[in-house]
Amino acid sequence: MPHSNTIHESLTAVFQVRRFLADVSAGRGSARHPELAVLLWQRALDPQKGTWSLPGGRLRDDEDLDTSARRQLAEKVDVRELDHLEQLSVFSAPDRVPAPRRIASAYLGLVPLTTEPALPSDTTWHPVAALPEMSFDHRTVVDHARTRLAAKLSYTNIAYALAPDTFTMSTLREIYCAALGYDVDTTNLQRVLSRRRVITPTGATAPSGRAGGRPAALYRFTDSGLRVTDEFAALRPPS
Amino acid sequence: MPHSNTIHESLTAVFQVRRFLADVSAGRGSARHPELAVLLWQRALDPQKGTWSLPGGRLRDDEDLDTSARRQLAEKVDVRELDHLEQLSVFSAPDRVPAPRRIASAYLGLVPLTTEPALPSDTTWHPVAALPEMSFDHRTVVDHARTRLAAKLSYTNIAYALAPDTFTMSTLREIYCAALGYDVDTTNLQRVLSRRRVITPTGATAPSGRAGGRPAALYRFTDSGLRVTDEFAALRPPS
Repeated sequence: MPHSNTIHESLTAVFQVRRFLADVSAGRGSARHPELAVLLWQRALDPQKGTWSLPGGRLRDDEDLDTSARRQLAEKVDVRELDHLEQLSVFSAPDRVPAPRRIASAYLGLVPLTTEPALPSDTTWHPVAALPEMSFDHRTVVDHARTRLAAKLSYTNIAYALAPDTFTMSTLREIYCAALGYDVDTTNLQRVLSRRRVITPTGATAPSGRAGGRPAALYRFTDSGLRVTDEFAALRPPS
Repeated sequence: MPHSNTIHESLTAVFQVRRFLADVSAGRGSARHPELAVLLWQRALDPQKGTWSLPGGRLRDDEDLDTSARRQLAEKVDVRELDHLEQLSVFSAPDRVPAPRRIASAYLGLVPLTTEPALPSDTTWHPVAALPEMSFDHRTVVDHARTRLAAKLSYTNIAYALAPDTFTMSTLREIYCAALGYDVDTTNLQRVLSRRRVITPTGATAPSGRAGGRPAALYRFTDSGLRVTDEFAALRPPS
């Protein structure tokens, strides 16, 4: 049977905006700008021993792909800390890994800024802008996930899954800048997100930083599930 | 081997907005309102003989899924007539079809209004609002494809793949109404699509209908590829 050896697997790019330390080796790093990071584990065995892989693995006979992706992730990071998980696309090039053929259903997962999941010893966060040597086509999967995230930041409220429960506009701007990879103006961001009712003021303020100054207003995301924030007014169903 | 019998297949919901005839059996039907239609073929053999299926089939060892989906479609409809083809998601419930297990990568395909593809004798267009008895989970795939199309109509220019090269606003409104399943106001649609530069006037006009009256302006889609038409101004990269 020519088809009998094909394996189906899930592969998830789990993203978090994280504040990486400038100098970890000195034992006391200073906080840097937040960066978009992806969760990777290092292969202890061949093929491609030493390269870094996305979490994932083989689909079982008794589960569907979403269940399988969550099960595989549970081995690397507590899935209760995932605020968003969605299918990206299927990577099915016949030669994407050495035989036997593996067809990979890729997922995008998001973890909020303030969460610090416990990780196994072979697993760590890497800045997406400075990836280590990646296994097989996993770098392409990361690129694809990042493109999807950037697109959805522009027409949905998906940033809720990267933000803490409440946040200042300054923090939210850092999250958008890190996830998009370019600078965003705080005032403009606040105006657009408020007009579309993506974010809501909580009425509370954040404690002043060491520098003092006026306390900053705290916001939250209006909805906790994904929604398209800009349906054409012209296209809304009659209410 | 517990995994050796799994088959991977593609399944494509090909949509077209079509003017169905009110009474085909009388040989001379009268034109009705356009409706969203999907391309289905009727199974001549068991399992589920007589039910209607989406075009698709088994992934070959030497092709990826996109190639496979286009190849399978070529047997039902000339793929040069497809203006858009995108992956939806994977249908992987272990019991979705009788054994052996089949994992289906679902696609959305779009054919423009004025195209009339030649079809094999077992294949025909059905209004999405009045589907016949469908095979397996194919109705769920159609629902999923329709939901994706409606969402993308609200934040992308995807309607280019359903519209003729040039069209009046009246025709474009019919396409949006049929694809969305509810009424849309022509003036509002024109205002929103023009402001976002989704459509452009050609400068020409359509011939008057039998009723006479003022000739209607012809429009075209500004871009021939898919793009998100509403990136937040705040989120655009610096130019």
